[in-house]
Amino acid sequence: MEKKQKNDGYMPRTDLALDAAEFIKSKYYVEAAKEGTLPDGIEMDVQEDENVKITKIKVDTDGAAEAIGKEKGNYITLEIPNIINFEPSDFENLSHKLAEILREVCKMEKGKSVLIAGLGNWNVTADSLGPKTVSKVFVSRHIKQYMPDEIDERVNQLAAISPGVLGITGIETGEIICGTAEKIKPDIIIAIDALASGKIQRINTTIQVADTGISPGSGLGNKRMKLSKETMGVPVIAIGVPTVVDAVTFAGDAIDSLSERLGKNMIGDIAPGGNYRRLREYFDEDFNDLVVTPKDIDNVMEKLSEVIANGINLCVHQGLSLSEINSINC
Amino acid sequence: MEKKQKNDGYMPRTDLALDAAEFIKSKYYVEAAKEGTLPDGIEMDVQEDENVKITKIKVDTDGAAEAIGKEKGNYITLEIPNIINFEPSDFENLSHKLAEILREVCKMEKGKSVLIAGLGNWNVTADSLGPKTVSKVFVSRHIKQYMPDEIDERVNQLAAISPGVLGITGIETGEIICGTAEKIKPDIIIAIDALASGKIQRINTTIQVADTGISPGSGLGNKRMKLSKETMGVPVIAIGVPTVVDAVTFAGDAIDSLSERLGKNMIGDIAPGGNYRRLREYFDEDFNDLVVTPKDIDNVMEKLSEVIANGINLCVHQGLSLSEINSINC
Amino acid sequence: MEKKQKNDGYMPRTDLALDAAEFIKSKYYVEAAKEGTLPDGIEMDVQEDENVKITKIKVDTDGAAEAIGKEKGNYITLEIPNIINFEPSDFENLSHKLAEILREVCKMEKGKSVLIAGLGNWNVTADSLGPKTVSKVFVSRHIKQYMPDEIDERVNQLAAISPGVLGITGIETGEIICGTAEKIKPDIIIAIDALASGKIQRINTTIQVADTGISPGSGLGNKRMKLSKETMGVPVIAIGVPTVVDAVTFAGDAIDSLSERLGKNMIGDIAPGGNYRRLREYFDEDFNDLVVTPKDIDNVMEKLSEVIANGINLCVHQGLSLSEINSINC
Amino acid sequence: MEKKQKNDGYMPRTDLALDAAEFIKSKYYVEAAKEGTLPDGIEMDVQEDENVKITKIKVDTDGAAEAIGKEKGNYITLEIPNIINFEPSDFENLSHKLAEILREVCKMEKGKSVLIAGLGNWNVTADSLGPKTVSKVFVSRHIKQYMPDEIDERVNQLAAISPGVLGITGIETGEIICGTAEKIKPDIIIAIDALASGKIQRINTTIQVADTGISPGSGLGNKRMKLSKETMGVPVIAIGVPTVVDAVTFAGDAIDSLSERLGKNMIGDIAPGGNYRRLREYFDEDFNDLVVTPKDIDNVMEKLSEVIANGINLCVHQGLSLSEINSINC
Repeated sequence: MEKKQKNDGYMPRTDLALDAAEFIKSKYYVEAAKEGTLPDGIEMDVQEDENVKITKIKVDTDGAAEAIGKEKGNYITLEIPNIINFEPSDFENLSHKLAEILREVCKMEKGKSVLIAGLGNWNVTADSLGPKTVSKVFVSRHIKQYMPDEIDERVNQLAAISPGVLGITGIETGEIICGTAEKIKPDIIIAIDALASGKIQRINTTIQVADTGISPGSGLGNKRMKLSKETMGVPVIAIGVPTVVDAVTFAGDAIDSLSERLGKNMIGDIAPGGNYRRLREYFDEDFNDLVVTPKDIDNVMEKLSEVIANGINLCVHQGLSLSEINSINC
Repeated sequence: MEKKQKNDGYMPRTDLALDAAEFIKSKYYVEAAKEGTLPDGIEMDVQEDENVKITKIKVDTDGAAEAIGKEKGNYITLEIPNIINFEPSDFENLSHKLAEILREVCKMEKGKSVLIAGLGNWNVTADSLGPKTVSKVFVSRHIKQYMPDEIDERVNQLAAISPGVLGITGIETGEIICGTAEKIKPDIIIAIDALASGKIQRINTTIQVADTGISPGSGLGNKRMKLSKETMGVPVIAIGVPTVVDAVTFAGDAIDSLSERLGKNMIGDIAPGGNYRRLREYFDEDFNDLVVTPKDIDNVMEKLSEVIANGINLCVHQGLSLSEINSINC
Repeated sequence: MEKKQKNDGYMPRTDLALDAAEFIKSKYYVEAAKEGTLPDGIEMDVQEDENVKITKIKVDTDGAAEAIGKEKGNYITLEIPNIINFEPSDFENLSHKLAEILREVCKMEKGKSVLIAGLGNWNVTADSLGPKTVSKVFVSRHIKQYMPDEIDERVNQLAAISPGVLGITGIETGEIICGTAEKIKPDIIIAIDALASGKIQRINTTIQVADTGISPGSGLGNKRMKLSKETMGVPVIAIGVPTVVDAVTFAGDAIDSLSERLGKNMIGDIAPGGNYRRLREYFDEDFNDLVVTPKDIDNVMEKLSEVIANGINLCVHQGLSLSEINSINC
Repeated sequence: MEKKQKNDGYMPRTDLALDAAEFIKSKYYVEAAKEGTLPDGIEMDVQEDENVKITKIKVDTDGAAEAIGKEKGNYITLEIPNIINFEPSDFENLSHKLAEILREVCKMEKGKSVLIAGLGNWNVTADSLGPKTVSKVFVSRHIKQYMPDEIDERVNQLAAISPGVLGITGIETGEIICGTAEKIKPDIIIAIDALASGKIQRINTTIQVADTGISPGSGLGNKRMKLSKETMGVPVIAIGVPTVVDAVTFAGDAIDSLSERLGKNMIGDIAPGGNYRRLREYFDEDFNDLVVTPKDIDNVMEKLSEVIANGINLCVHQGLSLSEINSINC
């Protein structure tokens, strides 16, 4: 079960621990001891270079989990605002950085078998990150035995499935993955999905890796049966990217931003930061099924799924280089 | 050349004559003689039944064209808020209504040859209305001579092309269509494209038919070389549907709507209705490449392209029923 | 375990019981008591009208199963040579006929829950029959509880999954379906797949319904873990259509056909009908990865998946008409 | 007008000059002065390395053109039997070799503007080589003016169009390309299309570059209005790859091959090599709409379109490296 966010309605809806941590540190968060601080039990560490900013957040106590509205565990985000314009060498660097993070989080080692679960709906571009990534990972489970020894040594067992969404199958995604995992018994599950974020700037620019599992459909649909060690029996690592913002959240962002620039609160009788709840009441009927998304989302999904597939391939098949993987995985 | 809208920045950006006419009649339009009236030279006629509201707008004088910011000509809109839930019989009725309107606007008669131009980008769902429609019309130009006489009698020559957008081809859409039209010499061109509207409620619920031609890419991109009788040499009928709203316009809508509900103007120092221009200044950098779109846009594009293709097929091949067309056009 | 065909190498490779029965009755089948008869334990019943020929074959004894090279059970084939040119009304009739057959084979009744398994590879047109059908069935399992009572009464629980092929997932198709079935516990599984046939005339013109289960990938790939009552725990009904012929079989067909027309055996020193085994030796290296397929296979896959989805929908949701289903299942 | 092949019915149907030249040199070609020689006016030059065999054929006289059944001009073929297993570095080498050949054939130089025409049907995998290549070339015509001078210097104007096939548009492909070329006035047209070959081993392993133009639809459909300097007004360079073999030709190949292995002619009363004409008579009705194609054609189309797009990009934008092009052309 996922914890309820303590300040339901005050904190904008987000699947990113980074969003939540930043909100807690902001002036809008009235319960913070003081602006700019994080509650006990939450550690945050930032590394930054020209192309990518990596933030590691550790949520250590039940109290901290309640305060930030996220499960206890590790959340690593990569912020890559310019991925669409990356040079090939930047792109390769990013793949290696993601692989390194995954290797640490997955405690990857020789002989571990992995099941990749590509969550989301392949028919909806903004929700296709998972299936697209699955189509690009180097699936080896069925051919490992036929490989030359020299390669076989350096490749781990990787299987991959895109189960489809509830609306397409009539089956909870978690049931399909759990049923499959019981048959093939992987050592670890890596699940990829589109996420929700409260900030328009996050869209397609932020990759979150978490060791706490994932609830399919967070980004576009309703929350469902969680994929986690409790439900699946093996550790579940989640990789997510916010790909849309819901229109109500966006409207709130716009009003907030305007308030700030005009130097006056646009919604006087509503507590700071609380406008999201009220806006939802105002707008839900009109804007309910609308999302905000970049015009060039098709291109960006290609790039993001490629970098995530690269990261997974380099993490799982540790003995192979990217060009070796790509020449085998045609 | 398209006329500039007289109140540039005041009137929200829209390709729908209906939006513009309604804006002119609204309290925001300060120059209107009085609220609720239209300038001389603009006629508006409304017919409505359970499923569809049809509005015919005729812009008759240069002055009227300037006031409404649209070319002189005829604009017919079909408002169909519930198309996604239509029963098959409603769907067929709508197809016949659209066919009737097209027949009138195209002055369709036996022997007329038609070129269908599906504008827009097939790789971007929200921009794929034109190419999707082209894939569903009954192309007969190349087989008319081989048909049994009995059918041939009832079928007109129809050719169809999806030229792709400038970003894909490096060529103005108008150049490809004009070059092709010079070769095959159709009597009339019907162009289908996604449009822009200033109102979120218009998205995927409004079909506009106009006898004034069309500028490719109005909806999602920049305006380009117009397709019209002047540039193409034959009449150009445009069929358009708003499929997205740009994010800045949406933010303005949200702020307006909130202002109204709170009973106070949210942007005090900006003239009523003028917030669009100011908002654009505030938000353009942040929200520039974002659009607002329904979650289920893929489904809706299927339905809309089918109804438009049906309408065109019934209009052009006047002697055939819908089921005859569909059984030939497999 | 699937039975070996008794005359391995003599009987052309086929998944159709009808092919096998016809071969047994032919002059090539040297062990037949006499030309034109079937062994004891095999019953064959034929009904035919203008558009479709329905053959019911019952394999009743172990000896008969060995002779025909097919499991004991019921095999119903619909031969529809002209499906691509069907009028809408013929198409609807065919859907109802298939539904009737399925209802009988599935022993369908109110309250039975069904899992549809769309086998095959969605990336390969000739192998996409299963996934395409899945995309068209009316999935109701997740929404039954939310439906108006009046509709709910007439709808059974239907879930659907396209697991992908071994080469894409690294997982046996049977493992995913079995794992899923253990979670959602359907009363029956209906699996759809492309089949192999030894006859070029069968391609895309023959639907086989069998109550004996199915081995995924029969048509294009290698035989895999069988889906059957033994492996899945519930009855497995298989619906299959031959969509390709492998190139070696085709070459054999061509040589046979030529022999017949020239009135002399082209391969003198090879027993009649035995050329398939020898041809395979001659040609396997050269022609191994080649298949023979119709040019317009994309169109035909659309039609066939639609008729099969219609048949399933009418079978499972017995209280609804085709037009009711299509208007709900948008 | 394309020349008729002199020995109509004797020479297998092929779009490859290489096939035709090899046939003329073979024992089947009864009119050859002697086996192993080519008629006067045909020059043939072969270069070969580990991965690719390059054959340049020059047809110089009318007599030679008649003998070989191909227009006067230059035909260069690259034979790459293992492209599907190429290492990335081999793949890049091949791209550069193709670019070099194109540069020579196109007489490419700074300032030349190019129109790429991707012939064929994007809905049919085996016929999608042209449209797929178009989607991968670096289209620069519309952005050249906006580029930094430093890049602009090194980029030529490139436009690209996939006109679709006659069955989709009702318009001859040549009419659309000619009409477009008259508007944008390129210095040269490069057309890409699927070809026919009489040899199964050619499928997806042979690239032909010719300076004689091309007839759209050679590979899968009927021959149409030729694209050539005569019809388009500027030189037309054709790049083609055989992607299917028609089933009748394949049957003939199989029978020939078997005849050879059995050491006796299978069709005694038909002249050597003449079986193709007779076979066509035997088989046309049955096998008419069938083609033979590899199972993994989807993968191969990706690879081939990428190598051709690379070759074109390196040829046209001479100042840029492959990695520069790919990082700009995202």
